[in-house]
Amino acid sequence: PKEEAIKEPAVTYLSSWNDGATKRAIMDFVTKTTTEGSADFIPVADRIATFDNDGNLWAEQPVYFQLLFAIDQIKTMAPEHPEWKNEQPYKALLEGDIKAALAGGEKALLQIVMTTHGGMSNDEFAASVKNWIDTATHPKTGKHYNEMIYQPMVELLEYLRAHDFKTFIVSGGGVDFMRVWVEEAYGIPPYQVVGSSNKARFEVAEDGSTSVVKLQELNFIDDKEGKPVGIYQHIGQRPVFASGNSDGDYQMLQWTTTAKGYPRFGLLLHHTDAEREWAYDRESHIGQLNKGLDDAQKFGWTVIDMKNDWKKVFPFDE
Amino acid sequence: PKEEAIKEPAVTYLSSWNDGATKRAIMDFVTKTTTEGSADFIPVADRIATFDNDGNLWAEQPVYFQLLFAIDQIKTMAPEHPEWKNEQPYKALLEGDIKAALAGGEKALLQIVMTTHGGMSNDEFAASVKNWIDTATHPKTGKHYNEMIYQPMVELLEYLRAHDFKTFIVSGGGVDFMRVWVEEAYGIPPYQVVGSSNKARFEVAEDGSTSVVKLQELNFIDDKEGKPVGIYQHIGQRPVFASGNSDGDYQMLQWTTTAKGYPRFGLLLHHTDAEREWAYDRESHIGQLNKGLDDAQKFGWTVIDMKNDWKKVFPFDE
Ligand SMILES: [Ca+2]
Ligand SMILES: [Ca+2]
Repeated sequence: PKEEAIKEPAVTYLSSWNDGATKRAIMDFVTKTTTEGSADFIPVADRIATFDNDGNLWAEQPVYFQLLFAIDQIKTMAPEHPEWKNEQPYKALLEGDIKAALAGGEKALLQIVMTTHGGMSNDEFAASVKNWIDTATHPKTGKHYNEMIYQPMVELLEYLRAHDFKTFIVSGGGVDFMRVWVEEAYGIPPYQVVGSSNKARFEVAEDGSTSVVKLQELNFIDDKEGKPVGIYQHIGQRPVFASGNSDGDYQMLQWTTTAKGYPRFGLLLHHTDAEREWAYDRESHIGQLNKGLDDAQKFGWTVIDMKNDWKKVFPFDE
Repeated sequence: PKEEAIKEPAVTYLSSWNDGATKRAIMDFVTKTTTEGSADFIPVADRIATFDNDGNLWAEQPVYFQLLFAIDQIKTMAPEHPEWKNEQPYKALLEGDIKAALAGGEKALLQIVMTTHGGMSNDEFAASVKNWIDTATHPKTGKHYNEMIYQPMVELLEYLRAHDFKTFIVSGGGVDFMRVWVEEAYGIPPYQVVGSSNKARFEVAEDGSTSVVKLQELNFIDDKEGKPVGIYQHIGQRPVFASGNSDGDYQMLQWTTTAKGYPRFGLLLHHTDAEREWAYDRESHIGQLNKGLDDAQKFGWTVIDMKNDWKKVFPFDE
């Protein structure tokens, strides 16, 4: 019939979410804060939503993907560093023994990260990340890492943006590691990514070409109590919506939901799905969620039960 | 006649600019980089434009307005600091002798800035800036400081945004000093402001309320070779358009216009109008423009001659 031709297609948001209390809480918040005339209305300029990345927008098991990138980079760089055959943590990494390499604790980890994330120009670093994203695959699923993103969370980002929220990533991961691929994966532009960083320096070469060089020195760690600081320095506004999955996000959610004025929303992703993804929380070395589970009720945070709240986990799931 | 009712009104961009080489160079660049099918076309995601603030979007004479804010804050805080009556640089400031106060050089300046920009919560600081913007007036014009913005530059920002450029401020000024008022003045949201900053700390009070507290310690100086670094850390992309007015912007323009790939645009504002504004360049203590004038031709930067290129300077000009 003729009148159907001019109808707008109905948009279905959050289609990978099961109907239930979690989905309803999210939709109730968005509806009441974006409906003109509502007592809980939030002006567009203040609709700031922040999302942790590892274990929240993409997976993080068996170890943080950025560490897998760093390990692959060590292998790529090894031919130019013959001394690594006898030097830890490189020796263990090159022999494929990640556990032994990380036995050196934080110092070993920092050494791996600095060797692979500093001492090159920003363009060289971005190219190495892009190449890794395009070629490396996950040991369990065989998928590219940028395919191991959570379909329901991608839909949540789209749903918020459709209601004029600005969506930001606020992650403990390296800011320029993420910027290379997150726009395509999540629709979040580089300048809306907040993360950890190295110091950097502007350099002019003899031929007049210019670059920003990443130094092997930490600049900022965007984790735990660093997250509110990172948001303050980068975004300059307290969020009204914050989403994370571990105790590293505790302070970001706390800062968000204890604010006065507008209603606020705190969201925690609980990994409860050993079959489709992984199940881990209080005892996990990666993405530990302990204090957050204890205090979620006190702060009124909504907890996603991955197994029951999500119809599918990854975009490639049936 | 009936057909006129459905015509779109013609939009006139850059109406406070005189027709001439400068306006033409800007419009040629924007046209060729935003016209589909043009060999010089730049995709929307890469249309990043960065603007210095002091002396580029608003005035900066007789001294940087942020310093005038700091001096007014010292006076506001003085009753709680009786010891300042005998302590420099406070004593001189309270006696109205700015020159004597600044005789202590960078150390005195830093002391004034740290006293007035650290040791309080971000909300308290923002409130004090807002109050100052709402009440303080310029010693020469008697206008509020947020009225002393350059009308032609506001139009340039609007013109670029109308062509899907993202406009950022990249200033040596304090990032959270600017964020309070720039959205209203220039249409630039807080998260698109890059600037100098203090370190900060997340704090939880006994009553459970939370805040980010500004410390009396420098975090980052977003000036000279710091500007490319600040852009890299915050925006994560090399601009295609950069605009400034002093040698503090030299490296930002250099980094922008020496990039490979897309066409780039470097713009310098030369203060040549002693009558409507101020005339200063190579010898000025504020906003010195020396090396930039020497090398503008070499880099292909366009230089605005304020006196001849602008029909009006401030929005309140006739
Ligand atoms: Ca996480
Ligand atoms: Ca300036």
